[in-house]
Amino acid sequence: MSLLVVGSIALDSVETPFGTKVDAIGGSAMFCSYAASLLHGVQVVGVVGDDYPPEALERLAKRGVDLQGVERKQGESFRWKGKYSYDLQNRETLETRLGVFAEFEPRIPDAFSDAKYVFLGNIDPALQLRVLDQVDHPTLVACDTMNYWIHGQRETLLEVMQRIDVLLVNDAEARELSGDWNVYRAARWILSHGPRLVVIKQGVYGAVLVNRERVFYIPAFPLEDVFDPTGAGDAFAGGFMGHLARTDDTDEENLRRAMVFGAAMGSFAVERFSTDRFDEIGPAEVTGRVREFAELVRFEIQPEVASSG
Amino acid sequence: MSLLVVGSIALDSVETPFGTKVDAIGGSAMFCSYAASLLHGVQVVGVVGDDYPPEALERLAKRGVDLQGVERKQGESFRWKGKYSYDLQNRETLETRLGVFAEFEPRIPDAFSDAKYVFLGNIDPALQLRVLDQVDHPTLVACDTMNYWIHGQRETLLEVMQRIDVLLVNDAEARELSGDWNVYRAARWILSHGPRLVVIKQGVYGAVLVNRERVFYIPAFPLEDVFDPTGAGDAFAGGFMGHLARTDDTDEENLRRAMVFGAAMGSFAVERFSTDRFDEIGPAEVTGRVREFAELVRFEIQPEVASSG
Repeated sequence: MSLLVVGSIALDSVETPFGTKVDAIGGSAMFCSYAASLLHGVQVVGVVGDDYPPEALERLAKRGVDLQGVERKQGESFRWKGKYSYDLQNRETLETRLGVFAEFEPRIPDAFSDAKYVFLGNIDPALQLRVLDQVDHPTLVACDTMNYWIHGQRETLLEVMQRIDVLLVNDAEARELSGDWNVYRAARWILSHGPRLVVIKQGVYGAVLVNRERVFYIPAFPLEDVFDPTGAGDAFAGGFMGHLARTDDTDEENLRRAMVFGAAMGSFAVERFSTDRFDEIGPAEVTGRVREFAELVRFEIQPEVASSG
Repeated sequence: MSLLVVGSIALDSVETPFGTKVDAIGGSAMFCSYAASLLHGVQVVGVVGDDYPPEALERLAKRGVDLQGVERKQGESFRWKGKYSYDLQNRETLETRLGVFAEFEPRIPDAFSDAKYVFLGNIDPALQLRVLDQVDHPTLVACDTMNYWIHGQRETLLEVMQRIDVLLVNDAEARELSGDWNVYRAARWILSHGPRLVVIKQGVYGAVLVNRERVFYIPAFPLEDVFDPTGAGDAFAGGFMGHLARTDDTDEENLRRAMVFGAAMGSFAVERFSTDRFDEIGPAEVTGRVREFAELVRFEIQPEVASSG
């Protein structure tokens, strides 16, 4: 089933303890699409400036990503510059230049309006609403956001929440949004404000899927070498949505599997700068990592032991 | 198989956002024994002052805990006073009065010297070595420690590490000890210094078991109401060691199960002040929680999906 991804397309300049990269492929729509395209076709809507390297988009096109919704406008592309701490756990934004992204007005091509799976990357909630106005009857809509919108556009964001199925946030955002420091109570608060599912991303610790009845936890993949955390959350969304779109199944069992594909894609994203890792891997590596996740959490209860005193 | 626990027996005074408790049962040996005794018999070695409430020890004795190794000495019992932050993620030590614990010299009763499973709670590594000198041929020795000893008694601690099977530490301690901020590299460093297994406790995120080949991750139980985190790590050790002792099986499959029992006991510990929760539960609650853990991480890979492109 068709998967529509709407979000930022950026050029990221990143300093990590392991090196520096200037004007690399970045933005929520790019990380999500690179990851999702390992699983399924993707339709992208976004905007780039006339300085955006054509080969960055051509690489995506070769992966079966439909780029007719990517507008090229006169002006500079969205640029973000950041620096990570020695342990990659904190980052500082050194510069943000919105460029043509400041005037971004998502226009969903007619060919995309019947998309069944929709990912709203972290953009102004007012724009997220306008995307929803342009799609017909999606099966599942997932939405990301950030503290900037939680503070500045709270009412609009609450309106978005009434119209989506899944909210994907990190733990700090869940706390900020709900006003509750306990992530499980925060999740319950979010579920009472619209979405039927919430995914709380916890960085190096993993991610949790909460619905009204149950909690599913997938740890982060145990990596000894993390290179660049940028885009991990969007790659997670790409794995999650890519799996749902290709299977067209939103039952709980399949949502759990989607979490594992999300975690796998998040773990690939951080192994290299930018989206570089996704150019090196194919379906075999994805399958291999999913199997490693199964081994990572596998245990069996012996009934006779579990019931003895 | 016999389980020997050596550690502190304290009176804890704890301030949390939910209330205050004065002179409650505390100390590594107590939390570990309360938890382990839900699974198996325990032999305790420690010291109390003449002010220690006899009923606190009688309650343990009624649970099948052998207290002949608990010395009662003239003087004040070890007291610790701490205060937690609003989200329970940080705590400040307000007061530590060592009392009779300052002169603690562990004497292992003859009847305990053939213990097959030994837990060395967080005490001076020099004392941990003297415990090991007094036990014959244990099947498995697990050891806890803390930053205080990592800084102050590093050489002695490294000597202890050469004589144990499992080091249990939290993530900050693993980083401190190894000098590496990545917990998986830190674990590998620890494994190269003696133990064949390392358990890294990550608080609200869970715990990880690492051996030379593999990693096993068990998340923390998703609790909406955490009351008092004191003793969670020692309760974890109690569940881990209690399960190993009762099954007398140190194969990897059973070590994974032991991690789940550890996580279950850690989750019970934080639901009330002190060891109070362990007075309310029995084998049925433990089994129930272990089954909930199985559900928390359960997913199945569909082979046809995992192998499709």
